[in-house]
Amino acid sequence: MVRIKPLGCERFFQSSTVEATFGGGEANVAVSLANFGMNVAYVTVLPSNDIANAGIAEMRKFNVDTSFIKRDSGRMGIYFLESGANQRASKVVYDRAGSSIALAKPGDIDWKTVFAGATWFHVTGITPAISASAAELSIESARIAQQMGLTVSCDFNYRGNLWKYGKKAPEVMTELVQYVDVGIANEEDCQKSLGVTADVQVERGHLDVDQYRTLSKRVMEAFPKMKLIAITLRESKSADHNGWSACLCAKDSFYVSRKYDITDIVDRVGGGDAFAAGLIFGLLNYDQNERALEFAVAASCLKHSISGDFNRVSVDEVEKLMGGDTSGRVQR
Amino acid sequence: MVRIKPLGCERFFQSSTVEATFGGGEANVAVSLANFGMNVAYVTVLPSNDIANAGIAEMRKFNVDTSFIKRDSGRMGIYFLESGANQRASKVVYDRAGSSIALAKPGDIDWKTVFAGATWFHVTGITPAISASAAELSIESARIAQQMGLTVSCDFNYRGNLWKYGKKAPEVMTELVQYVDVGIANEEDCQKSLGVTADVQVERGHLDVDQYRTLSKRVMEAFPKMKLIAITLRESKSADHNGWSACLCAKDSFYVSRKYDITDIVDRVGGGDAFAAGLIFGLLNYDQNERALEFAVAASCLKHSISGDFNRVSVDEVEKLMGGDTSGRVQR
Amino acid sequence: MVRIKPLGCERFFQSSTVEATFGGGEANVAVSLANFGMNVAYVTVLPSNDIANAGIAEMRKFNVDTSFIKRDSGRMGIYFLESGANQRASKVVYDRAGSSIALAKPGDIDWKTVFAGATWFHVTGITPAISASAAELSIESARIAQQMGLTVSCDFNYRGNLWKYGKKAPEVMTELVQYVDVGIANEEDCQKSLGVTADVQVERGHLDVDQYRTLSKRVMEAFPKMKLIAITLRESKSADHNGWSACLCAKDSFYVSRKYDITDIVDRVGGGDAFAAGLIFGLLNYDQNERALEFAVAASCLKHSISGDFNRVSVDEVEKLMGGDTSGRVQR
Amino acid sequence: MVRIKPLGCERFFQSSTVEATFGGGEANVAVSLANFGMNVAYVTVLPSNDIANAGIAEMRKFNVDTSFIKRDSGRMGIYFLESGANQRASKVVYDRAGSSIALAKPGDIDWKTVFAGATWFHVTGITPAISASAAELSIESARIAQQMGLTVSCDFNYRGNLWKYGKKAPEVMTELVQYVDVGIANEEDCQKSLGVTADVQVERGHLDVDQYRTLSKRVMEAFPKMKLIAITLRESKSADHNGWSACLCAKDSFYVSRKYDITDIVDRVGGGDAFAAGLIFGLLNYDQNERALEFAVAASCLKHSISGDFNRVSVDEVEKLMGGDTSGRVQR
Amino acid sequence: MVRIKPLGCERFFQSSTVEATFGGGEANVAVSLANFGMNVAYVTVLPSNDIANAGIAEMRKFNVDTSFIKRDSGRMGIYFLESGANQRASKVVYDRAGSSIALAKPGDIDWKTVFAGATWFHVTGITPAISASAAELSIESARIAQQMGLTVSCDFNYRGNLWKYGKKAPEVMTELVQYVDVGIANEEDCQKSLGVTADVQVERGHLDVDQYRTLSKRVMEAFPKMKLIAITLRESKSADHNGWSACLCAKDSFYVSRKYDITDIVDRVGGGDAFAAGLIFGLLNYDQNERALEFAVAASCLKHSISGDFNRVSVDEVEKLMGGDTSGRVQR
Amino acid sequence: MVRIKPLGCERFFQSSTVEATFGGGEANVAVSLANFGMNVAYVTVLPSNDIANAGIAEMRKFNVDTSFIKRDSGRMGIYFLESGANQRASKVVYDRAGSSIALAKPGDIDWKTVFAGATWFHVTGITPAISASAAELSIESARIAQQMGLTVSCDFNYRGNLWKYGKKAPEVMTELVQYVDVGIANEEDCQKSLGVTADVQVERGHLDVDQYRTLSKRVMEAFPKMKLIAITLRESKSADHNGWSACLCAKDSFYVSRKYDITDIVDRVGGGDAFAAGLIFGLLNYDQNERALEFAVAASCLKHSISGDFNRVSVDEVEKLMGGDTSGRVQR
Repeated sequence: MVRIKPLGCERFFQSSTVEATFGGGEANVAVSLANFGMNVAYVTVLPSNDIANAGIAEMRKFNVDTSFIKRDSGRMGIYFLESGANQRASKVVYDRAGSSIALAKPGDIDWKTVFAGATWFHVTGITPAISASAAELSIESARIAQQMGLTVSCDFNYRGNLWKYGKKAPEVMTELVQYVDVGIANEEDCQKSLGVTADVQVERGHLDVDQYRTLSKRVMEAFPKMKLIAITLRESKSADHNGWSACLCAKDSFYVSRKYDITDIVDRVGGGDAFAAGLIFGLLNYDQNERALEFAVAASCLKHSISGDFNRVSVDEVEKLMGGDTSGRVQR
Repeated sequence: MVRIKPLGCERFFQSSTVEATFGGGEANVAVSLANFGMNVAYVTVLPSNDIANAGIAEMRKFNVDTSFIKRDSGRMGIYFLESGANQRASKVVYDRAGSSIALAKPGDIDWKTVFAGATWFHVTGITPAISASAAELSIESARIAQQMGLTVSCDFNYRGNLWKYGKKAPEVMTELVQYVDVGIANEEDCQKSLGVTADVQVERGHLDVDQYRTLSKRVMEAFPKMKLIAITLRESKSADHNGWSACLCAKDSFYVSRKYDITDIVDRVGGGDAFAAGLIFGLLNYDQNERALEFAVAASCLKHSISGDFNRVSVDEVEKLMGGDTSGRVQR
Repeated sequence: MVRIKPLGCERFFQSSTVEATFGGGEANVAVSLANFGMNVAYVTVLPSNDIANAGIAEMRKFNVDTSFIKRDSGRMGIYFLESGANQRASKVVYDRAGSSIALAKPGDIDWKTVFAGATWFHVTGITPAISASAAELSIESARIAQQMGLTVSCDFNYRGNLWKYGKKAPEVMTELVQYVDVGIANEEDCQKSLGVTADVQVERGHLDVDQYRTLSKRVMEAFPKMKLIAITLRESKSADHNGWSACLCAKDSFYVSRKYDITDIVDRVGGGDAFAAGLIFGLLNYDQNERALEFAVAASCLKHSISGDFNRVSVDEVEKLMGGDTSGRVQR
Repeated sequence: MVRIKPLGCERFFQSSTVEATFGGGEANVAVSLANFGMNVAYVTVLPSNDIANAGIAEMRKFNVDTSFIKRDSGRMGIYFLESGANQRASKVVYDRAGSSIALAKPGDIDWKTVFAGATWFHVTGITPAISASAAELSIESARIAQQMGLTVSCDFNYRGNLWKYGKKAPEVMTELVQYVDVGIANEEDCQKSLGVTADVQVERGHLDVDQYRTLSKRVMEAFPKMKLIAITLRESKSADHNGWSACLCAKDSFYVSRKYDITDIVDRVGGGDAFAAGLIFGLLNYDQNERALEFAVAASCLKHSISGDFNRVSVDEVEKLMGGDTSGRVQR
Repeated sequence: MVRIKPLGCERFFQSSTVEATFGGGEANVAVSLANFGMNVAYVTVLPSNDIANAGIAEMRKFNVDTSFIKRDSGRMGIYFLESGANQRASKVVYDRAGSSIALAKPGDIDWKTVFAGATWFHVTGITPAISASAAELSIESARIAQQMGLTVSCDFNYRGNLWKYGKKAPEVMTELVQYVDVGIANEEDCQKSLGVTADVQVERGHLDVDQYRTLSKRVMEAFPKMKLIAITLRESKSADHNGWSACLCAKDSFYVSRKYDITDIVDRVGGGDAFAAGLIFGLLNYDQNERALEFAVAASCLKHSISGDFNRVSVDEVEKLMGGDTSGRVQR
Repeated sequence: MVRIKPLGCERFFQSSTVEATFGGGEANVAVSLANFGMNVAYVTVLPSNDIANAGIAEMRKFNVDTSFIKRDSGRMGIYFLESGANQRASKVVYDRAGSSIALAKPGDIDWKTVFAGATWFHVTGITPAISASAAELSIESARIAQQMGLTVSCDFNYRGNLWKYGKKAPEVMTELVQYVDVGIANEEDCQKSLGVTADVQVERGHLDVDQYRTLSKRVMEAFPKMKLIAITLRESKSADHNGWSACLCAKDSFYVSRKYDITDIVDRVGGGDAFAAGLIFGLLNYDQNERALEFAVAASCLKHSISGDFNRVSVDEVEKLMGGDTSGRVQR
């Protein structure tokens, strides 16, 4: 997906020079995992034009395997991002109608070939929000992944500006999430994507962790195959200043991470994807779930200091932050 | 329509900083006429989002009346432009599928209100290339304009990368052009848009004016209501260096304009639109067709020195060039 | 007025690339009101050159009626702005001597035509600071506006770097303000523009609201026609971090607004103008003065997040902030 | 003088990012001579503000002695430059009214101190065009320089957009030029600045050298103290493409230089100043006037490849071009 | 190698914003071949720091296999490039002393592993110019490649600003070139790199093809294993305007290619590398040497229209130009 | 030294546009003192190329005397800087191997000439960290300065990424510091540069002033000629947010300065150099050491608001901050 963003904090088209980069939920997770040294392939459907070629080259730069990407009809999805500041919120204008992935349908991708030899599959709630056929394709992918024994993770990723094709998010997502081993959500996704509710209010700026414990439990009860659910807890004090932490719930445990105070956010888009990638990395590389959670929170904390969708940080940098050094002292 | 262009002569996404401006055939003609001091309204269908709002504001900046623009479903059309140099051609990637104007259909615009008090209506062959319903809407507009006594001009504007919805250009354009008083074409449009042929070869770099006389006559025979046809004659020596002239054919006259040698083209996109606007201005403001033609050629010659789709020149500047001053001496 | 500003936080001419935009007290108020959907005309005197033409086009982009602007001799005013950070203050170098408005004098503008059909006239204390004739022109405008029954508002806007032509601000401003219905001031304007004092100290960083109540009452006593006076209360903690609130005093009431903590100011220039526009909008569109005040404070709070003089926000955005959502959460 | 210029070939305020650099006739000559290794002082009057400070620092960077610059009232002069292309001419909007140098008058500068130890004084016809007092100051400077035995050179530099204070150029310039040893002119200056005519037409694009011989002789007859006059001969084929040569006339000789074909002009503003500096350098450093002329033409030819007013080239680079290497081959 | 270049035609450090990209002879050839769809690996020695990591990622973006790059001590080589215009030549300041490749020595790279399965090895005369040990490493690489049956090509690439370590180019290059099957040179390399002379003068701007035939034959006689030698023929009319062609000499044939007139060069650095890559591609993919030569010339002609060292063109684009379409007409 | 920095908070080579400026410890001190109006000469060894020429010109712009700079073999040192944000630290990649100063050795500079007429010499611990010969040169310089009666100040400036040539910092620095009258350090330099320890932990984010008193005393005991030692106390709360103060220890006094809270750091590189320059200025211009310390802390506090290595502030601006005005209110 192309991301078009005015420079700095300018409003849309305030000047004619803009940033054009690439991003999107699944791509962001793939790049982040590749940055952590994992073998990752990104699977999607893209058109055969120079714009899509450039997007693919960009992912290859980060060492993501792009050989499974299918080229087909349709257009390249776009989103326009305006960066907020202080009390003014960031704004996203989606332009994904008619994109190749929106036109894709079950059967278009040979999942058996894609999944051969893989151990983990990550899917998000954004693709199912674009079109009915993309929703079916997403469900197909998760179903086959589970059948083939991959661990399936899903970031529920509720997007109110999508979901325009006639179905409500929970109608689709509850079907998808039944194949999911590891659920990932932000503070409002469980309610809006899955329809599972607890007394959680996200506009307040501070968060009640107990409510999230309750919410997590309810989701796991509703989806019995789910082994873990992680929820990021963003305290939105202003567009520049967030508190950032997360909780991780298993059948018999509930961890709340360290909380980071991020006072001068550079770019918070992709923060949730950085968390998802960090969690996948952590679960695959650490013995303890708690440590995986801390890695995920630290990785995504650092994402807030990096412009663009992609989280350009290394395992060393994340582990340094996990180790408690939040001083930002110059390394020289 | 949003125009996304890499800086300078960079290839698509060679760097992440790009220009985002607005343009498109009909908009370019409207802005150019407004710059010449004419009262102009721009009529189209656009979505209700910040991107379209910005495009409308940009046209208002040039004094174009935007009050007839209809806001409806669909997306904002986009085109990606890569600027060529020397032997490397410029490239356009259209991204117009699903745009509001592509979804528009006859009846969506109240042409009687729009045309009330107007004397001239300009339409192009680009809109009919986008979708079947847009083609019908275009034909409707020209038919009603003619019925209401407006002079109807049409730039045939053949675009091979559009025309994907099942009809060939001549099938649609011959129907539209029957309502046209003033036809405008480039060196290949008559053949590709209308199917009217003469022995014209455009890749050669130099042009045989006699062939264009023959071609013009044939078009006027095929469309008996057409009173005038103007054809721009571009000699493409390289992406930076073009010869630029035009001819104008009436029932009983045929003029060939002065030819300009443009050796360091800044931006040739919108050159044809600048010509169309110049011709409309000239026909409305000068007594002689020949002078109208010279104004149109001079105006569009100047367009090649201006970046962006819009021709940011004044009547004074065009008339200075018509007067023969091609010296480019500093004015101070 | 042209505004020349180094990029980011660079000092004057630290690099050769700068921003050139348009702004100025009255223009900022006009654009802000137009953004709120009001019918606004901007009246001034400008030279007949390309620089002034560009400034007029920019205002038209925002839907401001520019047809009353008089073109005359003189130059286009300029101001150079250097953006501060932390403990380093922003700096303004005015370059307004000899500008068209500085040369303008009573009789140059046909106020009766300008005011025909209008209901509100806004004037500032900046124009009277530029030259003796501009001061007389300002007084003339307010006098005629009052005679014709318009509501007259005035932002006192003390500027120590202007006022060079021999008179002190209070000598002129007390004459102007006698025609004013709605006075607008910042925390030091009443003292420096009008010579009305109270024990107010603005360098302290925090503010004593009671002093402002006293000060407001004294101003209203000194200018008996004044029905309302609003004072913005800026707590300058650093160049990036301000507290922002205001009070509104009528004959029989005194409101203090909600206070916003603005921790990462993008551009505070134009904040007072955004307040003035918000107050005018609020007084014209809400029943309660208190709500008008809250609208004005929220609108101007948002201005601090927007680069350039103009406040590019909509009524919806202001009302969302008035409603208490300061979270800056991404809208998607 | 501040120079404000849109990027590339953009028209005024086409976008909000612009270049702000320093320049102006006399400053350009000073910088150019300093680049050639000469000891140069730049003498002018500037205001005491950050803008002027930055201009002075920029000249010091090039090793120009700025210690004689007087700081006084008034503003910093500005000019706005729009770069042309092809048939579209570059445009200059002067904004020099009220500048410190415009306010300066005879007696303001202690010329005896300034000239102590100096051997050459260069003055231009731009300063006398700004105001009556600046004209008197210019005449004073040339008179004293001559009295003190300095060689006085003067670039006539006619600027039609200045000369607004009531006198015509020849009225003033003929008085100034009587003190001049070395006159420097472009193809139209003699006629417009001094009123000395020959049948020279500059809009034609090609030049008749014989006419310039006649013209040179007439100027030298009119000003008997003048020992040399050099005239640059610009063939303006387009804004990007000029022929460039010059002639040098002494009592008993007339040389015409080599002609350079400059096909892709980067920035021609300052070309004449680069010629003047080159001529002064050449006359001071070479035995033969002809070689001085060739140095001046080569130096100013190179200026057309350099952005900004200042000619950033070394003696080595000029001499390499004089030696006949116009190949532009990469040096590596 | 990092390439630091001022923007546009600015001189070194004229402003503080510069371009930082990656390039260098061998890297450019590798990227070009990858763009043509070939399997290419780039082998070099680089330090282990973020700067080198970024360079490697950039090459991976173009699908170049970077897995054989050895990370070792030393620094990342840099070159500073200033782009000329008209009569002003481009300038290169090398900063390669102490780079990892300069410190590398025979034995550092396991060539047997690198060459396993490969069919072609390309080496240049730049690496041997950096240090004695790098020269030995280069000779080692060519020797082993030949032993293992790879076709060895070498671009002689004389760089006068390198070769500082005590040996003259021919001393080293004649040893290296004895292992070369395909020699590649520009108009002066044979003389300066190999010491093989003919009466060739490169500063003249036009070229005598017969001399190049003689020169080619002499080189092939001197190096009997060489099967082909290609020489690019650059006519340097100015920094912006070059004629571009080449000749190819085999034992029993001599072809001269079509000549391209490149009038508005965007960036000529890397033109020779683009030729080398085009020749390798052509020799591997076409039956006729003549066609390989034409491909190489067309590919490198297009390079002159592309900024940066890398030749970002596809086989389709090159073949379109080979087919004779030099019109640069917009593709839309 | 050239400083190459990505724009804003981008990571290394995230985009191809970067900032290239000049800086380095000793240069920063020189520029800062020149900005305060002091006569300053900068002495170093640089190569004879365009890059070094540009650096010298930049210093001359600030009025630094560059006439003692020796031009010799070697390269221009470079450092790459990546600006951190929030929890992500800034990163420096040094590229100084083989630089002219690294190659310089005792005897290369004629210190007697340099020091003639001077009263103060400032040296840092960075030069001795580059090479053994540079270390010896540094020691030589300090020794001769002391012999000639100059006050010698030294910023210990420990840089872990340098010191690669075989000696540990304390081995060299203890020899250098024996000639030092005024020692300057940051919170870790005394320990790492001199090996003098106290229980100081710098990663904590808050500081215990008593430990610094102890540490200062120990340093002064170890180096009996030292009359004063100043230590900056940086509380690193994040990359954007630091507390900033300092202490100054003499034989019989110990002052702790006011502390500034810097919440939106623009560029902290050069903060220590700004402190050193401020301290030198203060000790030379104020009677009281305490006031010198406050000047140094205020000057360096302001540096954090300025991009680039150089502290572009005036004495007036520093004294205004010393006077307690931290409000950052716009000056207009």
